[in-house]
Amino acid sequence: MKTLFIGGVKSGKSRLAEAYILDQYPNSKKQGKPYYLATTEFIDEEMQARIHIHQQRRQDAFVTLEEPIKLLEALQFCTRPVLVECISMWLNNMLYHQIAEADILFELEAVLSLSCDVVMVHNEVGFGVIPDNALARQFVDLSGKAAQMMGKYCDRVFFCSAGLKITMK
Amino acid sequence: MKTLFIGGVKSGKSRLAEAYILDQYPNSKKQGKPYYLATTEFIDEEMQARIHIHQQRRQDAFVTLEEPIKLLEALQFCTRPVLVECISMWLNNMLYHQIAEADILFELEAVLSLSCDVVMVHNEVGFGVIPDNALARQFVDLSGKAAQMMGKYCDRVFFCSAGLKITMK
Amino acid sequence: MKTLFIGGVKSGKSRLAEAYILDQYPNSKKQGKPYYLATTEFIDEEMQARIHIHQQRRQDAFVTLEEPIKLLEALQFCTRPVLVECISMWLNNMLYHQIAEADILFELEAVLSLSCDVVMVHNEVGFGVIPDNALARQFVDLSGKAAQMMGKYCDRVFFCSAGLKITMK
Repeated sequence: MKTLFIGGVKSGKSRLAEAYILDQYPNSKKQGKPYYLATTEFIDEEMQARIHIHQQRRQDAFVTLEEPIKLLEALQFCTRPVLVECISMWLNNMLYHQIAEADILFELEAVLSLSCDVVMVHNEVGFGVIPDNALARQFVDLSGKAAQMMGKYCDRVFFCSAGLKITMK
Repeated sequence: MKTLFIGGVKSGKSRLAEAYILDQYPNSKKQGKPYYLATTEFIDEEMQARIHIHQQRRQDAFVTLEEPIKLLEALQFCTRPVLVECISMWLNNMLYHQIAEADILFELEAVLSLSCDVVMVHNEVGFGVIPDNALARQFVDLSGKAAQMMGKYCDRVFFCSAGLKITMK
Repeated sequence: MKTLFIGGVKSGKSRLAEAYILDQYPNSKKQGKPYYLATTEFIDEEMQARIHIHQQRRQDAFVTLEEPIKLLEALQFCTRPVLVECISMWLNNMLYHQIAEADILFELEAVLSLSCDVVMVHNEVGFGVIPDNALARQFVDLSGKAAQMMGKYCDRVFFCSAGLKITMK
């Protein structure tokens, strides 16, 4: 089972995804806590503050993993549900390390084909004016292609705004 | 009863909110016209033109109040339904006057806890590329936090695009 | 019958609109292929690559027309369903040729009043931070006004993200 929470900055998508995975896969002695896979690599002060808020919220409900690049490798042997927070940041890291777009999407498709339960969080960045900056345009494009691929493979897709979700699929 | 209309620039959210409040709370002799609380403070020519269009549309259906800053004070004793047009502008004014984010959100929460009927209009600004500009990022963040708070407190939430609305709650 | 697919960059709106028109109006010997009206005028390398992808996808399912400006003239005598790809680009071309906003919207309204079946694709660009650039603001405004007009006239409206659609109308 694959699930996608897509929404803008501060749309509440992360919080909704966390609540969802804990609700769908209750932490039981038998199953253990779900994983929380953080993809953040570059950390400035602003980012640090954000991460700290996210961490406080997660408290003891998740086992946290950190992997900014090798998403498939990190998820390959997961035997418990995983929340990936977030795909946008992973795309960003991959572009920074000059991985070709086709290879990025190929890896994402492999992740979506794994048998484990994955809940993905993704930023929708394509509803503003098309940016002047070519790099930003490349990111918007890749982000949208990745979103479409997730939209296709995921069993459930939620569109988020104002801390609420609309079921798309 | 609290209601939120959230949407992008020119998504039709104001028009939909106006139609909604007039439909929900018909102007009767007994109850009188609903209030229209305009939060605009800074007015350039472009803004003036926009305001003029909004005013023409409101015609005689509302009693117009103007308050760019003291939202709680303005709404505190309202005995009739109020349309707040819009929360984004109020947030913008509060940031301009260097009110701390926590205080802004505290005041918003107080407004949302009032017993009167309030219909709020709010801009969704978080679905584009994250802005380079730190001030713009601060605004996007605050705007999203405010949206989530409204999403939580409001009884009904509508997401707007193309002059149409999707019910989120 | 008029239909609108609105969504961000790379939201999958074009692909969804193509699938929709082929599903709604199956290519039969009697009726012939639907038209595909491409509105692109200015073509740089990046654009060329995009167009090429779109063309490959269309294959033999459509009869392609090209008209960047005279939308009404091109559609006036259409006897088969038409996919207009896309209204945003047409608005952009009209602004470039300094057609007044009122005249652009007047022509759009005339198109929406034609009796033929039209499926329109349109970019939602109003969910990001309001641009600094006055020309970009003008485009966002016009784009939103056009979207509202299409939302009003169209029988069916779909909001697109992640390659999926939400029915708005």
